[in-house]
Amino acid sequence: MVKSVTHIRVRYAEVDQMGFLHHGNYAAYYEVGRGEMIREAGYPYSEMEKDGIVMPVVKMSAKFLRPALYEDNIRVETTLKELLDIPFVTFHHKLFNEKNELIHTSEITLTFFDPKIQKRVAMPKRLRDILEKSFK
Amino acid sequence: MVKSVTHIRVRYAEVDQMGFLHHGNYAAYYEVGRGEMIREAGYPYSEMEKDGIVMPVVKMSAKFLRPALYEDNIRVETTLKELLDIPFVTFHHKLFNEKNELIHTSEITLTFFDPKIQKRVAMPKRLRDILEKSFK
Amino acid sequence: MVKSVTHIRVRYAEVDQMGFLHHGNYAAYYEVGRGEMIREAGYPYSEMEKDGIVMPVVKMSAKFLRPALYEDNIRVETTLKELLDIPFVTFHHKLFNEKNELIHTSEITLTFFDPKIQKRVAMPKRLRDILEKSFK
Amino acid sequence: MVKSVTHIRVRYAEVDQMGFLHHGNYAAYYEVGRGEMIREAGYPYSEMEKDGIVMPVVKMSAKFLRPALYEDNIRVETTLKELLDIPFVTFHHKLFNEKNELIHTSEITLTFFDPKIQKRVAMPKRLRDILEKSFK
Repeated sequence: MVKSVTHIRVRYAEVDQMGFLHHGNYAAYYEVGRGEMIREAGYPYSEMEKDGIVMPVVKMSAKFLRPALYEDNIRVETTLKELLDIPFVTFHHKLFNEKNELIHTSEITLTFFDPKIQKRVAMPKRLRDILEKSFK
Repeated sequence: MVKSVTHIRVRYAEVDQMGFLHHGNYAAYYEVGRGEMIREAGYPYSEMEKDGIVMPVVKMSAKFLRPALYEDNIRVETTLKELLDIPFVTFHHKLFNEKNELIHTSEITLTFFDPKIQKRVAMPKRLRDILEKSFK
Repeated sequence: MVKSVTHIRVRYAEVDQMGFLHHGNYAAYYEVGRGEMIREAGYPYSEMEKDGIVMPVVKMSAKFLRPALYEDNIRVETTLKELLDIPFVTFHHKLFNEKNELIHTSEITLTFFDPKIQKRVAMPKRLRDILEKSFK
Repeated sequence: MVKSVTHIRVRYAEVDQMGFLHHGNYAAYYEVGRGEMIREAGYPYSEMEKDGIVMPVVKMSAKFLRPALYEDNIRVETTLKELLDIPFVTFHHKLFNEKNELIHTSEITLTFFDPKIQKRVAMPKRLRDILEKSFK
Protein backbone atom coordinates (compact mmCIF):
# COMPACT_ATOMS: atom_id res chain seq x y z
CA MET A 1 0.00 0.00 0.00
CA VAL A 2 0.90 3.67 -0.27
CA LYS A 3 0.35 5.88 2.76
CA SER A 4 0.56 9.63 3.09
CA VAL A 5 0.14 11.83 6.15
CA THR A 6 -0.75 15.51 6.18
CA HIS A 7 -1.99 18.01 8.78
CA ILE A 8 -4.82 20.47 8.34
CA ARG A 9 -5.82 23.08 10.90
CA VAL A 10 -9.60 23.55 11.04
CA ARG A 11 -10.57 26.98 9.70
CA TYR A 12 -13.22 29.21 11.20
CA ALA A 13 -14.98 29.37 7.83
CA GLU A 14 -15.38 25.57 7.90
CA VAL A 15 -17.13 25.27 11.26
CA ASP A 16 -20.91 25.37 11.67
CA GLN A 17 -23.04 26.80 14.46
CA MET A 18 -22.78 23.58 16.45
CA GLY A 19 -19.09 24.46 16.63
CA PHE A 20 -18.18 21.41 14.52
CA LEU A 21 -16.26 21.15 11.26
CA HIS A 22 -19.26 21.01 8.91
CA HIS A 23 -19.73 17.50 7.50
CA GLY A 24 -19.60 18.75 3.90
CA ASN A 25 -16.12 20.17 4.45
CA TYR A 26 -14.41 16.85 5.18
CA ALA A 27 -14.38 16.16 1.43
CA ALA A 28 -11.83 18.97 0.97
CA TYR A 29 -9.64 17.37 3.64
CA TYR A 30 -9.61 14.01 1.83
CA GLU A 31 -8.85 15.88 -1.38
CA VAL A 32 -5.86 17.59 0.23
CA GLY A 33 -4.70 14.18 1.49
CA ARG A 34 -4.95 12.53 -1.94
CA GLY A 35 -3.39 15.54 -3.62
CA GLU A 36 -0.39 15.43 -1.27
CA MET A 37 0.06 11.69 -1.84
CA ILE A 38 0.39 11.98 -5.59
CA ARG A 39 2.33 15.26 -5.47
CA GLU A 40 4.84 13.62 -3.10
CA ALA A 41 4.99 10.62 -5.41
CA GLY A 42 5.91 13.00 -8.22
CA TYR A 43 2.81 13.67 -10.31
CA PRO A 44 0.85 16.68 -9.03
CA TYR A 45 -2.83 16.46 -9.85
CA SER A 46 -2.64 19.89 -11.51
CA GLU A 47 -0.20 18.34 -14.03
CA MET A 48 -2.47 15.37 -14.62
CA GLU A 49 -5.28 17.77 -15.51
CA LYS A 50 -2.94 19.61 -17.90
CA ASP A 51 -2.20 16.18 -19.40
CA GLY A 52 -5.91 15.87 -20.10
CA ILE A 53 -7.19 13.52 -17.39
CA VAL A 54 -9.59 14.50 -14.61
CA MET A 55 -10.78 12.46 -11.63
CA PRO A 56 -14.46 12.83 -10.75
CA VAL A 57 -15.73 11.14 -7.59
CA VAL A 58 -18.10 8.22 -8.15
CA LYS A 59 -18.70 6.97 -4.61
CA MET A 60 -18.05 8.21 -1.12
CA SER A 61 -18.84 7.01 2.39
CA ALA A 62 -17.90 8.43 5.76
CA LYS A 63 -18.26 7.86 9.49
CA PHE A 64 -18.19 10.79 11.90
CA LEU A 65 -16.91 9.47 15.25
CA ARG A 66 -16.04 12.70 17.07
CA PRO A 67 -16.32 16.33 16.04
CA ALA A 68 -13.38 18.39 14.81
CA LEU A 69 -13.33 21.88 16.31
CA TYR A 70 -12.01 25.27 15.18
CA GLU A 71 -8.19 25.46 15.36
CA ASP A 72 -7.84 21.70 15.91
CA ASN A 73 -4.80 20.43 14.06
CA ILE A 74 -6.15 17.35 12.28
CA ARG A 75 -3.89 14.55 11.04
CA VAL A 76 -5.16 13.14 7.76
CA GLU A 77 -3.90 9.68 6.85
CA THR A 78 -4.53 8.68 3.25
CA THR A 79 -4.07 5.11 2.13
CA LEU A 80 -4.12 3.50 -1.30
CA LYS A 81 -4.44 -0.24 -0.79
CA GLU A 82 -4.34 -1.59 -4.32
CA LEU A 83 -3.86 -0.69 -7.96
CA LEU A 84 -6.35 -2.52 -10.13
CA ASP A 85 -6.68 -2.74 -13.90
CA ILE A 86 -9.92 -0.79 -13.89
CA PRO A 87 -10.63 2.89 -14.51
CA PHE A 88 -11.31 3.43 -10.79
CA VAL A 89 -9.17 4.03 -7.74
CA THR A 90 -10.18 3.93 -4.08
CA PHE A 91 -8.60 5.91 -1.25
CA HIS A 92 -9.10 5.39 2.48
CA HIS A 93 -8.83 8.33 4.83
CA LYS A 94 -8.48 8.37 8.61
CA LEU A 95 -8.59 11.61 10.55
CA PHE A 96 -7.12 12.03 14.05
CA ASN A 97 -7.30 14.93 16.48
CA GLU A 98 -4.41 16.27 18.56
CA LYS A 99 -5.12 13.73 21.32
CA ASN A 100 -4.53 11.09 18.64
CA GLU A 101 -8.18 10.01 18.77
CA LEU A 102 -9.63 8.64 15.54
CA ILE A 103 -12.40 11.08 14.73
CA HIS A 104 -13.41 10.20 11.18
CA THR A 105 -13.02 7.54 8.49
CA SER A 106 -13.85 7.71 4.83
CA GLU A 107 -13.63 5.64 1.69
CA ILE A 108 -13.83 7.36 -1.64
CA THR A 109 -13.74 6.01 -5.20
CA LEU A 110 -12.78 8.17 -8.16
CA THR A 111 -12.59 7.43 -11.84
CA PHE A 112 -10.15 8.58 -14.51
CA PHE A 113 -11.96 10.50 -17.19
CA ASP A 114 -10.86 11.98 -20.49
CA PRO A 115 -13.08 14.99 -21.26
CA LYS A 116 -11.97 15.06 -24.92
CA ILE A 117 -13.45 11.63 -25.67
CA GLN A 118 -15.99 11.84 -22.77
CA LYS A 119 -14.93 8.37 -21.60
CA ARG A 120 -13.49 6.66 -18.58
CA VAL A 121 -9.90 5.57 -19.11
CA ALA A 122 -7.30 3.51 -17.28
CA MET A 123 -5.08 5.11 -14.64
CA PRO A 124 -2.48 7.21 -16.52
CA LYS A 125 0.73 5.21 -16.93
CA ARG A 126 2.85 7.95 -15.32
CA LEU A 127 0.70 7.87 -12.16
CA ARG A 128 0.64 4.07 -12.11
CA ASP A 129 4.44 3.87 -12.38
CA ILE A 130 5.16 6.30 -9.55
CA LEU A 131 2.52 4.78 -7.28
CA GLU A 132 3.89 1.28 -7.90
CA LYS A 133 7.32 2.50 -6.88
CA SER A 134 5.85 3.92 -3.66
CA PHE A 135 4.14 0.62 -2.74
CA LYS A 136 5.30 -1.01 0.47
CA MET B 1 -42.81 7.49 4.67
CA VAL B 2 -42.47 11.27 4.48
CA LYS B 3 -41.29 12.78 1.21
CA SER B 4 -40.28 16.33 0.43
CA VAL B 5 -39.22 17.88 -2.87
CA THR B 6 -37.18 21.02 -3.33
CA HIS B 7 -35.26 22.64 -6.19
CA ILE B 8 -31.75 24.09 -5.99
CA ARG B 9 -30.01 25.90 -8.83
CA VAL B 10 -26.29 25.09 -8.93
CA ARG B 11 -24.22 28.16 -8.01
CA TYR B 12 -21.01 29.22 -9.71
CA ALA B 13 -19.24 29.19 -6.35
CA GLU B 14 -20.09 25.50 -5.94
CA VAL B 15 -18.62 24.23 -9.21
CA ASP B 16 -15.01 23.04 -9.54
CA GLN B 17 -12.59 23.36 -12.45
CA MET B 18 -13.94 20.18 -14.04
CA GLY B 19 -17.14 22.19 -14.39
CA PHE B 20 -18.95 19.88 -11.95
CA LEU B 21 -20.78 20.65 -8.72
CA HIS B 22 -17.95 19.83 -6.31
CA HIS B 23 -18.61 16.56 -4.48
CA GLY B 24 -18.27 18.21 -1.07
CA ASN B 25 -21.10 20.61 -1.84
CA TYR B 26 -23.82 17.96 -2.19
CA ALA B 27 -23.99 17.79 1.61
CA ALA B 28 -25.48 21.31 1.67
CA TYR B 29 -28.12 20.18 -0.83
CA TYR B 30 -29.21 17.27 1.37
CA GLU B 31 -29.27 19.66 4.32
CA VAL B 32 -31.55 22.05 2.45
CA GLY B 33 -33.79 19.07 1.58
CA ARG B 34 -34.01 17.87 5.19
CA GLY B 35 -34.49 21.40 6.45
CA GLU B 36 -37.41 22.00 4.08
CA MET B 37 -39.03 18.71 5.09
CA ILE B 38 -39.18 19.54 8.76
CA ARG B 39 -39.96 23.23 8.20
CA GLU B 40 -42.91 22.22 6.00
CA ALA B 41 -43.99 19.72 8.65
CA GLY B 42 -44.02 22.60 11.13
CA TYR B 43 -40.83 22.49 13.18
CA PRO B 44 -38.00 24.52 11.59
CA TYR B 45 -34.58 23.20 12.52
CA SER B 46 -33.61 26.69 13.74
CA GLU B 47 -36.39 26.35 16.36
CA MET B 48 -35.19 22.88 17.36
CA GLU B 49 -31.74 24.33 18.03
CA LYS B 50 -33.32 27.10 20.13
CA ASP B 51 -35.12 24.30 22.01
CA GLY B 52 -31.68 22.89 22.83
CA ILE B 53 -31.29 19.96 20.45
CA VAL B 54 -28.74 19.75 17.62
CA MET B 55 -28.35 17.09 14.93
CA PRO B 56 -24.76 16.13 14.10
CA VAL B 57 -24.17 13.74 11.19
CA VAL B 58 -22.88 10.30 12.16
CA LYS B 59 -22.77 8.48 8.80
CA MET B 60 -23.07 9.45 5.17
CA SER B 61 -22.79 7.63 1.85
CA ALA B 62 -23.28 8.86 -1.68
CA LYS B 63 -23.19 7.76 -5.31
CA PHE B 64 -22.36 10.25 -8.07
CA LEU B 65 -24.07 9.01 -11.24
CA ARG B 66 -23.86 12.10 -13.47
CA PRO B 67 -22.39 15.53 -12.88
CA ALA B 68 -24.48 18.58 -11.96
CA LEU B 69 -23.42 21.68 -13.88
CA TYR B 70 -23.53 25.41 -13.20
CA GLU B 71 -27.07 26.82 -13.49
CA ASP B 72 -28.66 23.34 -13.58
CA ASN B 73 -31.91 23.38 -11.66
CA ILE B 74 -31.60 20.26 -9.49
CA ARG B 75 -34.63 18.53 -7.96
CA VAL B 76 -33.81 17.18 -4.51
CA GLU B 77 -36.13 14.46 -3.22
CA THR B 78 -35.77 13.76 0.48
CA THR B 79 -37.36 10.68 2.04
CA LEU B 80 -37.76 9.58 5.62
CA LYS B 81 -38.68 5.90 5.59
CA GLU B 82 -39.15 5.10 9.25
CA LEU B 83 -39.24 6.55 12.74
CA LEU B 84 -37.45 4.30 15.18
CA ASP B 85 -37.12 4.45 18.96
CA ILE B 86 -33.42 5.21 18.77
CA PRO B 87 -31.53 8.51 18.96
CA PHE B 88 -30.79 8.33 15.21
CA VAL B 89 -32.68 9.24 12.08
CA THR B 90 -31.84 8.36 8.46
CA PHE B 91 -32.74 10.38 5.38
CA HIS B 92 -32.51 9.27 1.76
CA HIS B 93 -31.86 11.83 -0.95
CA LYS B 94 -32.24 11.52 -4.70
CA LEU B 95 -31.14 14.29 -7.04
CA PHE B 96 -32.45 14.73 -10.58
CA ASN B 97 -31.38 17.10 -13.34
CA GLU B 98 -33.72 19.06 -15.63
CA LYS B 99 -33.93 16.10 -18.05
CA ASN B 100 -35.31 14.13 -15.09
CA GLU B 101 -32.21 11.93 -15.01
CA LEU B 102 -31.23 10.56 -11.60
CA ILE B 103 -27.78 12.06 -11.02
CA HIS B 104 -27.04 11.32 -7.38
CA THR B 105 -28.23 9.28 -4.40
CA SER B 106 -27.32 9.61 -0.77
CA GLU B 107 -28.13 8.12 2.61
CA ILE B 108 -27.31 10.09 5.71
CA THR B 109 -27.77 9.29 9.40
CA LEU B 110 -27.92 11.99 12.05
CA THR B 111 -28.27 11.80 15.78
CA PHE B 112 -30.15 14.00 18.24
CA PHE B 113 -27.76 15.54 20.71
CA ASP B 114 -28.26 17.69 23.77
CA PRO B 115 -25.15 19.89 24.24
CA LYS B 116 -26.13 20.77 27.85
CA ILE B 117 -25.82 17.16 29.02
CA GLN B 118 -23.43 16.16 26.19
CA LYS B 119 -25.57 13.13 25.41
CA ARG B 120 -27.53 11.61 22.59
CA VAL B 121 -31.26 11.82 23.17
CA ALA B 122 -34.44 10.50 21.54
CA MET B 123 -36.07 12.41 18.68
CA PRO B 124 -37.81 15.46 20.25
CA LYS B 125 -41.49 14.69 20.82
CA ARG B 126 -42.62 17.75 18.86
CA LEU B 127 -40.69 16.59 15.78
CA ARG B 128 -41.88 13.01 16.18
CA ASP B 129 -45.52 14.08 16.40
CA ILE B 130 -45.45 16.25 13.28
CA LEU B 131 -43.51 13.68 11.26
CA GLU B 132 -45.92 10.91 12.29
CA LYS B 133 -48.79 13.05 11.07
CA SER B 134 -46.99 13.52 7.72
CA PHE B 135 -46.48 9.75 7.24
CA LYS B 136 -48.19 8.22 4.22
CA MET C 1 -30.46 51.22 -14.46
CA VAL C 2 -31.30 47.52 -14.42
CA LYS C 3 -32.54 46.01 -11.16
CA SER C 4 -33.12 42.39 -10.26
CA VAL C 5 -34.50 40.90 -7.05
CA THR C 6 -33.99 37.36 -5.81
CA HIS C 7 -34.44 35.52 -2.50
CA ILE C 8 -31.96 33.18 -0.87
CA ARG C 9 -32.60 31.22 2.29
CA VAL C 10 -29.50 31.00 4.49
CA ARG C 11 -28.17 27.43 4.59
CA TYR C 12 -26.83 25.70 7.68
CA ALA C 13 -23.58 24.97 5.85
CA GLU C 14 -23.05 28.72 5.34
CA VAL C 15 -23.32 29.79 8.97
CA ASP C 16 -20.32 30.00 11.30
CA GLN C 17 -20.06 29.28 15.03
CA MET C 18 -21.15 32.83 15.88
CA GLY C 19 -24.43 31.78 14.26
CA PHE C 20 -23.90 34.29 11.43
CA LEU C 21 -23.80 33.78 7.68
CA HIS C 22 -20.02 33.61 7.27
CA HIS C 23 -18.68 36.79 5.65
CA GLY C 24 -16.99 34.83 2.86
CA ASN C 25 -20.31 33.33 1.76
CA TYR C 26 -21.94 36.64 0.79
CA ALA C 27 -19.96 36.54 -2.47
CA ALA C 28 -22.05 33.56 -3.60
CA TYR C 29 -25.21 35.54 -2.88
CA TYR C 30 -24.10 38.45 -5.06
CA GLU C 31 -23.17 35.93 -7.74
CA VAL C 32 -26.64 34.40 -7.62
CA GLY C 33 -28.08 37.93 -7.89
CA ARG C 34 -25.97 38.86 -10.93
CA GLY C 35 -26.61 35.48 -12.53
CA GLU C 36 -30.39 35.89 -12.18
CA MET C 37 -30.23 39.40 -13.64
CA ILE C 38 -28.56 38.34 -16.86
CA ARG C 39 -30.48 35.05 -17.12
CA GLU C 40 -33.76 36.99 -16.81
CA ALA C 41 -32.48 39.46 -19.40
CA GLY C 42 -31.93 36.50 -21.73
CA TYR C 43 -28.25 35.58 -21.67
CA PRO C 44 -27.43 33.01 -18.99
CA TYR C 45 -23.85 33.28 -17.78
CA SER C 46 -23.34 29.57 -18.54
CA GLU C 47 -24.01 30.44 -22.21
CA MET C 48 -21.60 33.35 -22.12
CA GLU C 49 -18.89 30.99 -20.90
CA LYS C 50 -19.73 28.58 -23.73
CA ASP C 51 -19.37 31.58 -26.06
CA GLY C 52 -15.84 31.95 -24.75
CA ILE C 53 -16.03 34.87 -22.32
CA VAL C 54 -15.50 34.62 -18.55
CA MET C 55 -15.93 37.28 -15.88
CA PRO C 56 -13.29 37.31 -13.14
CA VAL C 57 -13.77 39.68 -10.21
CA VAL C 58 -11.29 42.56 -10.03
CA LYS C 59 -12.55 44.56 -7.06
CA MET C 60 -15.02 44.00 -4.25
CA SER C 61 -16.13 45.93 -1.18
CA ALA C 62 -18.78 45.19 1.40
CA LYS C 63 -20.39 46.51 4.55
CA PHE C 64 -21.90 44.14 7.11
CA LEU C 65 -24.67 46.03 8.94
CA ARG C 66 -26.55 43.20 10.65
CA PRO C 67 -25.97 39.45 10.68
CA ALA C 68 -27.96 37.02 8.55
CA LEU C 69 -29.00 33.91 10.45
CA TYR C 70 -29.71 30.30 9.52
CA GLU C 71 -33.07 29.92 7.71
CA ASP C 72 -33.45 33.70 7.21
CA ASN C 73 -34.99 34.38 3.82
CA ILE C 74 -32.71 37.12 2.43
CA ARG C 75 -33.82 39.46 -0.34
CA VAL C 76 -30.93 40.25 -2.67
CA GLU C 77 -31.32 43.38 -4.79
CA THR C 78 -28.83 43.66 -7.64
CA THR C 79 -28.43 46.90 -9.55
CA LEU C 80 -26.48 47.77 -12.66
CA LYS C 81 -26.25 51.56 -12.85
CA GLU C 82 -24.41 52.15 -16.09
CA LEU C 83 -22.96 50.48 -19.16
CA LEU C 84 -19.59 51.97 -20.04
CA ASP C 85 -17.31 51.42 -23.02
CA ILE C 86 -14.69 49.72 -20.91
CA PRO C 87 -13.96 46.03 -20.28
CA PHE C 88 -15.38 46.31 -16.75
CA VAL C 89 -18.83 46.22 -15.23
CA THR C 90 -19.89 47.13 -11.69
CA PHE C 91 -22.84 45.69 -9.78
CA HIS C 92 -24.34 46.98 -6.55
CA HIS C 93 -25.99 44.56 -4.15
CA LYS C 94 -28.27 45.28 -1.20
CA LEU C 95 -29.40 42.51 1.13
CA PHE C 96 -32.50 42.72 3.33
CA ASN C 97 -33.79 40.39 6.02
CA GLU C 98 -37.42 39.34 6.50
CA LYS C 99 -38.12 42.44 8.63
CA ASN C 100 -37.06 44.44 5.56
CA GLU C 101 -33.97 45.72 7.37
CA LEU C 102 -30.96 46.49 5.19
CA ILE C 103 -28.32 44.08 6.47
CA HIS C 104 -25.54 44.30 3.89
CA THR C 105 -24.31 46.32 0.92
CA SER C 106 -21.69 45.47 -1.64
CA GLU C 107 -20.11 46.85 -4.78
CA ILE C 108 -18.28 44.49 -7.08
CA THR C 109 -16.41 45.08 -10.33
CA LEU C 110 -15.81 42.31 -12.83
CA THR C 111 -14.00 42.27 -16.12
CA PHE C 112 -14.74 40.46 -19.38
CA PHE C 113 -11.91 38.14 -20.25
CA ASP C 114 -11.20 35.96 -23.25
CA PRO C 115 -9.08 32.98 -22.12
CA LYS C 116 -8.11 32.10 -25.72
CA ILE C 117 -6.26 35.37 -26.26
CA GLN C 118 -5.64 35.93 -22.50
CA LYS C 119 -6.95 39.49 -22.79
CA ARG C 120 -9.66 41.70 -21.39
CA VAL C 121 -12.36 42.44 -23.93
CA ALA C 122 -15.41 44.69 -24.20
CA MET C 123 -18.77 43.54 -22.86
CA PRO C 124 -20.11 40.94 -25.35
CA LYS C 125 -22.52 42.62 -27.80
CA ARG C 126 -25.31 40.14 -27.00
CA LEU C 127 -25.14 40.99 -23.29
CA ARG C 128 -24.90 44.73 -23.99
CA ASP C 129 -27.96 44.63 -26.25
CA ILE C 130 -30.21 42.82 -23.80
CA LEU C 131 -29.07 44.92 -20.83
CA GLU C 132 -29.67 48.15 -22.79
CA LYS C 133 -33.21 46.95 -23.51
CA SER C 134 -33.73 46.31 -19.77
CA PHE C 135 -32.56 49.81 -18.79
CA LYS C 136 -35.14 52.00 -17.09
CA MET D 1 3.01 47.34 13.41
CA VAL D 2 2.59 43.58 13.83
CA LYS D 3 3.20 41.36 10.81
CA SER D 4 2.53 37.68 10.35
CA VAL D 5 3.28 35.42 7.39
CA THR D 6 1.61 32.13 6.57
CA HIS D 7 1.39 29.86 3.54
CA ILE D 8 -1.77 28.28 2.16
CA ARG D 9 -1.86 25.85 -0.74
CA VAL D 10 -4.92 26.39 -2.94
CA ARG D 11 -7.33 23.46 -2.63
CA TYR D 12 -9.24 21.90 -5.51
CA ALA D 13 -12.51 22.50 -3.67
CA GLU D 14 -11.77 26.26 -3.63
CA VAL D 15 -11.24 26.74 -7.37
CA ASP D 16 -14.06 27.62 -9.78
CA GLN D 17 -14.60 26.58 -13.38
CA MET D 18 -12.44 29.44 -14.64
CA GLY D 19 -9.64 27.59 -12.85
CA PHE D 20 -9.26 30.45 -10.36
CA LEU D 21 -9.45 30.46 -6.57
CA HIS D 22 -13.08 31.58 -6.22
CA HIS D 23 -13.27 35.19 -5.03
CA GLY D 24 -15.47 34.25 -2.06
CA ASN D 25 -12.79 31.92 -0.72
CA TYR D 26 -10.14 34.59 -0.12
CA ALA D 27 -11.98 35.54 3.08
CA ALA D 28 -10.96 32.20 4.62
CA TYR D 29 -7.32 32.94 3.72
CA TYR D 30 -7.38 36.30 5.52
CA GLU D 31 -9.04 34.57 8.45
CA VAL D 32 -6.26 31.98 8.61
CA GLY D 33 -3.73 34.85 8.47
CA ARG D 34 -5.36 36.79 11.32
CA GLY D 35 -5.82 33.61 13.33
CA GLU D 36 -2.13 32.71 13.02
CA MET D 37 -1.10 36.22 14.04
CA ILE D 38 -2.95 36.17 17.32
CA ARG D 39 -2.23 32.49 18.00
CA GLU D 40 1.50 33.21 17.54
CA ALA D 41 1.18 36.25 19.78
CA GLY D 42 -0.26 33.94 22.44
CA TYR D 43 -4.04 34.29 22.43
CA PRO D 44 -5.72 31.80 20.06
CA TYR D 45 -9.04 33.08 18.76
CA SER D 46 -10.72 29.88 19.97
CA GLU D 47 -9.72 30.91 23.51
CA MET D 48 -11.06 34.42 23.01
CA GLU D 49 -14.41 32.95 22.04
CA LYS D 50 -14.35 30.75 25.16
CA ASP D 51 -13.66 33.98 27.09
CA GLY D 52 -16.92 35.31 25.67
CA ILE D 53 -15.82 37.69 22.90
CA VAL D 54 -16.48 37.16 19.19
CA MET D 55 -15.26 39.20 16.22
CA PRO D 56 -17.80 39.76 13.45
CA VAL D 57 -16.64 41.45 10.26
CA VAL D 58 -18.04 44.95 9.68
CA LYS D 59 -16.26 46.04 6.49
CA MET D 60 -14.16 44.37 3.82
CA SER D 61 -12.55 45.44 0.57
CA ALA D 62 -10.33 43.56 -1.84
CA LYS D 63 -8.44 43.88 -5.11
CA PHE D 64 -7.85 40.85 -7.31
CA LEU D 65 -4.66 41.51 -9.30
CA ARG D 66 -3.84 38.04 -10.61
CA PRO D 67 -5.61 34.72 -10.19
CA ALA D 68 -4.49 32.04 -7.73
CA LEU D 69 -4.56 28.55 -9.23
CA TYR D 70 -5.04 25.05 -7.85
CA GLU D 71 -1.96 23.82 -5.94
CA ASP D 72 -0.37 27.30 -5.90
CA ASN D 73 1.38 27.85 -2.59
CA ILE D 74 0.15 31.32 -1.59
CA ARG D 75 2.03 33.49 0.90
CA VAL D 76 -0.39 35.46 3.05
CA GLU D 77 1.05 38.53 4.78
CA THR D 78 -1.15 39.94 7.52
CA THR D 79 -0.44 43.34 9.01
CA LEU D 80 -1.92 45.17 11.95
CA LYS D 81 -0.90 48.81 11.66
CA GLU D 82 -2.38 50.37 14.78
CA LEU D 83 -4.22 49.67 18.00
CA LEU D 84 -6.89 52.27 18.61
CA ASP D 85 -9.16 52.87 21.59
CA ILE D 86 -12.25 51.88 19.65
CA PRO D 87 -14.15 48.59 19.49
CA PHE D 88 -12.79 47.95 15.97
CA VAL D 89 -9.59 46.54 14.54
CA THR D 90 -8.38 46.61 10.94
CA PHE D 91 -6.10 44.06 9.28
CA HIS D 92 -4.33 44.39 5.94
CA HIS D 93 -3.62 41.30 3.88
CA LYS D 94 -1.29 40.87 0.91
CA LEU D 95 -1.17 37.62 -1.02
CA PHE D 96 1.78 36.55 -3.17
CA ASN D 97 2.18 33.60 -5.54
CA GLU D 98 5.26 31.38 -5.81
CA LYS D 99 6.89 33.78 -8.29
CA ASN D 100 6.60 36.39 -5.51
CA GLU D 101 4.07 38.38 -7.52
CA LEU D 102 1.52 40.34 -5.51
CA ILE D 103 -1.80 38.78 -6.55
CA HIS D 104 -4.29 40.21 -4.07
CA THR D 105 -4.73 42.87 -1.39
CA SER D 106 -7.43 43.25 1.20
CA GLU D 107 -8.42 45.43 4.11
CA ILE D 108 -10.87 44.10 6.64
CA THR D 109 -12.36 45.66 9.77
CA LEU D 110 -13.79 43.56 12.58
CA THR D 111 -15.45 44.53 15.81
CA PHE D 112 -15.27 42.99 19.28
CA PHE D 113 -18.69 41.85 20.37
CA ASP D 114 -20.01 40.41 23.61
CA PRO D 115 -23.01 38.16 22.81
CA LYS D 116 -24.14 38.11 26.48
CA ILE D 117 -24.80 41.84 26.55
CA GLN D 118 -25.28 42.11 22.75
CA LYS D 119 -22.88 45.05 22.62
CA ARG D 120 -19.63 46.05 21.02
CA VAL D 121 -16.77 46.17 23.51
CA ALA D 122 -13.15 47.33 23.56
CA MET D 123 -10.39 44.97 22.44
CA PRO D 124 -9.91 42.41 25.25
CA LYS D 125 -7.05 43.50 27.51
CA ARG D 126 -5.23 40.18 27.11
CA LEU D 127 -5.20 40.57 23.30
CA ARG D 128 -4.19 44.21 23.53
CA ASP D 129 -1.29 43.42 25.84
CA ILE D 130 0.19 40.67 23.68
CA LEU D 131 -0.26 42.65 20.47
CA GLU D 132 1.40 45.71 22.02
CA LYS D 133 4.36 43.52 22.96
CA SER D 134 4.57 42.30 19.36
CA PHE D 135 4.59 45.85 17.92
CA LYS D 136 7.71 46.84 16.02
